Amino acid sequence: MLIGVTLLSNLAMSAAGFVVVLRIIPKFKDMFIKAGLKGVDMSKPVNKEIPESAGVISGSVFLIIMFLFIPVPFIQYWTTNTSEAFPHHEFVELVAALLSICCMLFLGFADDVLDLRWRHKLLLPTMASLPLLMVYYVTFNTTTIIVPKPFRLFLGHDLWLGPLYYVYMGMLAVFCTNAINILAGINGLEVGQSVIIAASIILFNFIELFGECWKAHIFSLYFMPPFLGTSLGLLYYNWYPSHVFVGDTFCYFAGMTFAVVGILGHFSKTMLLFFIPQISNFIFSVPQLFHLVPCPRHRLPKYNKDTDRVEMSCVMFKSNQLHPIGAMFLYIFHQFGLVCYRQGLGEDGKYSECTNFTLVNFVLKVMGPLRERTVTVILLVLQ
Amino acid sequence: MLIGVTLLSNLAMSAAGFVVVLRIIPKFKDMFIKAGLKGVDMSKPVNKEIPESAGVISGSVFLIIMFLFIPVPFIQYWTTNTSEAFPHHEFVELVAALLSICCMLFLGFADDVLDLRWRHKLLLPTMASLPLLMVYYVTFNTTTIIVPKPFRLFLGHDLWLGPLYYVYMGMLAVFCTNAINILAGINGLEVGQSVIIAASIILFNFIELFGECWKAHIFSLYFMPPFLGTSLGLLYYNWYPSHVFVGDTFCYFAGMTFAVVGILGHFSKTMLLFFIPQISNFIFSVPQLFHLVPCPRHRLPKYNKDTDRVEMSCVMFKSNQLHPIGAMFLYIFHQFGLVCYRQGLGEDGKYSECTNFTLVNFVLKVMGPLRERTVTVILLVLQ
Repeated sequence: MLIGVTLLSNLAMSAAGFVVVLRIIPKFKDMFIKAGLKGVDMSKPVNKEIPESAGVISGSVFLIIMFLFIPVPFIQYWTTNTSEAFPHHEFVELVAALLSICCMLFLGFADDVLDLRWRHKLLLPTMASLPLLMVYYVTFNTTTIIVPKPFRLFLGHDLWLGPLYYVYMGMLAVFCTNAINILAGINGLEVGQSVIIAASIILFNFIELFGECWKAHIFSLYFMPPFLGTSLGLLYYNWYPSHVFVGDTFCYFAGMTFAVVGILGHFSKTMLLFFIPQISNFIFSVPQLFHLVPCPRHRLPKYNKDTDRVEMSCVMFKSNQLHPIGAMFLYIFHQFGLVCYRQGLGEDGKYSECTNFTLVNFVLKVMGPLRERTVTVILLVLQ
Repeated sequence: MLIGVTLLSNLAMSAAGFVVVLRIIPKFKDMFIKAGLKGVDMSKPVNKEIPESAGVISGSVFLIIMFLFIPVPFIQYWTTNTSEAFPHHEFVELVAALLSICCMLFLGFADDVLDLRWRHKLLLPTMASLPLLMVYYVTFNTTTIIVPKPFRLFLGHDLWLGPLYYVYMGMLAVFCTNAINILAGINGLEVGQSVIIAASIILFNFIELFGECWKAHIFSLYFMPPFLGTSLGLLYYNWYPSHVFVGDTFCYFAGMTFAVVGILGHFSKTMLLFFIPQISNFIFSVPQLFHLVPCPRHRLPKYNKDTDRVEMSCVMFKSNQLHPIGAMFLYIFHQFGLVCYRQGLGEDGKYSECTNFTLVNFVLKVMGPLRERTVTVILLVLQ
């Protein structure tokens, strides 16, 4: 009964969050542009300046909702004279989760404003996930995992991973925060995928409510509806044609929120299933991310003004300067039809060109040039 | 013994924090200027652009140190098989305190970048202090205060304040975050006063270590040395002549840190004693803050290029447009010699002029025009 009331008030607050985000984003627009947080939408006929980093608004609203929500699950311990001791360990989970999310929102915003270096982007999420791991250590500290059936022959029924499991969880946080950021670049894609992931998690949690670990799934249900609500508000403005960009702020914030519920909700492995498009995109991008194949600053698709459609974007480089391992990847990916590759370009034929290694480009390769909105929809369906 | 080790490792980490801040600030300088976070020092012969909001660097280093420090006080519960249960309530205090500080750092930075409105500046610190009050409620919930002796005749020996006490604590957080910000404007003043307050608190904590509430004072000792270390690193660059400005970021962050240790360290009333200059400045500023007397955008002292000294700054207004209550304040303050006031100015004699209502101006009124560094030193001695 009490849990029902808690979840209902959470839903009500999420709905309120949606409305608030919807109302305040237009009011903040000028403030962002004045602060130089703006970008030009490269896939539009008219190059208009659009506020960047609006994710910070939905993120802040999310945090405020969660702060107001903190007492709700514990209200029974305060109003009635229950004999049960106050569940400090549940309380600390909630607070630590919010600390990690708040840190990440701050970092994302700092990244948008200051344009941080790569090493900060890897170091700082690790730091931000420290409180989370600490809480995990204190409250559960079960690093024994059940081995999936096919591997039981070699590894036995369960496996004690010890510190390795913490390394895995720390890396999950870093991965989640960056994965959404890498699969991005067209209107509505970052928020769209996050909304779908959040909705899937909510569904998954509801199904698992009747399972053994229902407590952990309720914990996740505290976070996901407010996240979904505020993100939907943001999506309204970020959907094609975008009125705001979400910035790294949103990607980091969303990724950390997912990592938090995955880790403290004890479904950090199931979580990865919801990230399949991001994981594929990440693996696909590896040759460019490690600079084995040249990687331009932005890898968003190329806009064709005449047709109002987006096409595959390419990167051009000197054929003889290609890293040998990069060349191998390029050959393999080309053979499997994942990228286009043309050699002998330029005046003297010394240049080569290949399409960027992103899922967005792959979709465009399979389907041909498309309208921007269509690409987003296809990718969200894949999700 | 164990507490000694904990405090020593905290000191070591604080020293490391000092060194880190000292080393990384110069590296980030260009990044800040590129991001448009810069200001012109108005009290210098040459108008050079200087990076603004460097407080975000010392704040982030502080947070990282604290994250790494989290496990230290609890290490005994993990290494040995003590029969004592893990002190979840102490753990949650630490985490919630960091959540509030992190929120505030984020808000301060957002304010520097976006230039938020007044209502956000009051609403958001209240939100940021919510987790703190929640933890206070859960772990102590003593809202009974001992009445100071002179008032015992009317109020009895102790007084149950109930919700009022929470309102007081929430307002303390809002006050602390803004008080440092209002007493500012010359090189090194914001950081200087914070450093002195932090040092005083550390001293006070050490003295009280042998008292009854030693546990609460140890809690405060976890926070203050890292704060002092990182702030000293910042002060090195912010001291006259400034190489960086600290921005609202630092003022908010410092204020919240003080509020946190005051509230959770149970000396929120003693805390106010350390804020006497800020409180005087605030009360002095009230007529201008509430716009009873016209208030310019900045109230920093006026720089005189010929003498390389700073002088009192003034505000000019139409005599007949002065608010009646403002006129009353002006009269009283003028009678007590706190401000200069001249009437019948302008071509038609319809304008009046008075000096700005700040402690900095008052010092300049008493001492005459001074070099900027001297003003800072005088104000810090007052502190």
